[in-house]
Amino acid sequence: MGELPPQVQNLAAQLQQVQQQLQLILTQKAQLESLIKEAKDALEELEKSDSDHAFKAVGNVLVKLKKDEVEKDLKEKIETYEVRKNMLERQENKLRERLADLQAKLKSAINVQAG
Amino acid sequence: MGELPPQVQNLAAQLQQVQQQLQLILTQKAQLESLIKEAKDALEELEKSDSDHAFKAVGNVLVKLKKDEVEKDLKEKIETYEVRKNMLERQENKLRERLADLQAKLKSAINVQAG
Amino acid sequence: MGELPPQVQNLAAQLQQVQQQLQLILTQKAQLESLIKEAKDALEELEKSDSDHAFKAVGNVLVKLKKDEVEKDLKEKIETYEVRKNMLERQENKLRERLADLQAKLKSAINVQAG
Amino acid sequence: MGELPPQVQNLAAQLQQVQQQLQLILTQKAQLESLIKEAKDALEELEKSDSDHAFKAVGNVLVKLKKDEVEKDLKEKIETYEVRKNMLERQENKLRERLADLQAKLKSAINVQAG
Repeated sequence: MGELPPQVQNLAAQLQQVQQQLQLILTQKAQLESLIKEAKDALEELEKSDSDHAFKAVGNVLVKLKKDEVEKDLKEKIETYEVRKNMLERQENKLRERLADLQAKLKSAINVQAG
Repeated sequence: MGELPPQVQNLAAQLQQVQQQLQLILTQKAQLESLIKEAKDALEELEKSDSDHAFKAVGNVLVKLKKDEVEKDLKEKIETYEVRKNMLERQENKLRERLADLQAKLKSAINVQAG
Repeated sequence: MGELPPQVQNLAAQLQQVQQQLQLILTQKAQLESLIKEAKDALEELEKSDSDHAFKAVGNVLVKLKKDEVEKDLKEKIETYEVRKNMLERQENKLRERLADLQAKLKSAINVQAG
Repeated sequence: MGELPPQVQNLAAQLQQVQQQLQLILTQKAQLESLIKEAKDALEELEKSDSDHAFKAVGNVLVKLKKDEVEKDLKEKIETYEVRKNMLERQENKLRERLADLQAKLKSAINVQAG
């Protein structure tokens, strides 16, 4: 087989680009999931605490805050992360559809070529 | 000497693969040992403490917990790590046996070749 | 087009060097801005605290200090960072001027060459 | 000039090796100096504290300890680091002497060669 025809090359290039975009989205989603897990773990530990205070680390300073306040902060954080995660998942789904579409087109282009 | 015979090449490839698997196991084992050491160090420090409370950091939140609870947590963690470490050590031993076996086979294949 | 004339090569080399210096300045400025933000965030959290103490982490040691003292420390830190940031911005402006100057010279040198 | 004579090549190789060893020592020394500085900073902050307790972080557990105990720990750490640093400095001095010696030998070997 000689050089690939321009149409096939073009589809393969698009496919690769979509795969890279998808990879980036999946990495960002994994980071958000890890932040959500961490915030939920913190809430779980706070429930076990018999103190009405907890500390929050900001840089190298640890600030004593009311437990309620820390819990409210964590819940807001989780909400923000969930919103961002949902946005990423919508993008992920669109990219997966586009990927399937490009793979089908590439397959049929290769079949035409080989037929 | 020309090209290596297929059998020798094949044994050498297997040997390399087993060495890589063993390297991975040893890295994971070292990580677990470091986590076990850290948890044991924390237990040791807790014994020196005259307070009946300690803090646990989860992300940037520090939660005040009863010392007993923190100690229980650490002991459970150590147990889990030890179980995983034992599993890795069983895999390590199997890989070391397989390595010795492959080295012996490779040696005798080279001797036949040279003889 | 054959080799670039020495004058053009020389201007291009200077341009690249100035761009690298500018990049370094911008990186250092971004680091300072992140430290300033962190210190301001800590001050903001301290304001929410109902305790007259806070902790400062130095290595793995957490020291209990009067809130006033921690706030004073943070304000001094911010001031120092702002001074350094201003110095960097003056350097940044000089480099941007030099960059524009070199770009103009390079452009006119290329035009003479092409004309 | 053709190939370098074996003696010059050999001296150059030794020189490079000594430079790499020296670089390693200097990196380790800088790490120790940074640890010493951190421990001294912690001692300094502890002096400012009006509390008779401080916390020590071990992994994600923060243990409440008597300030005296934490100070004793830090002073012992500093001593250990200083001993290691002195050992490294003795090695550094030997390597610097060896470096000067090799540089002189290399210079005279090159002069003989060129003369």
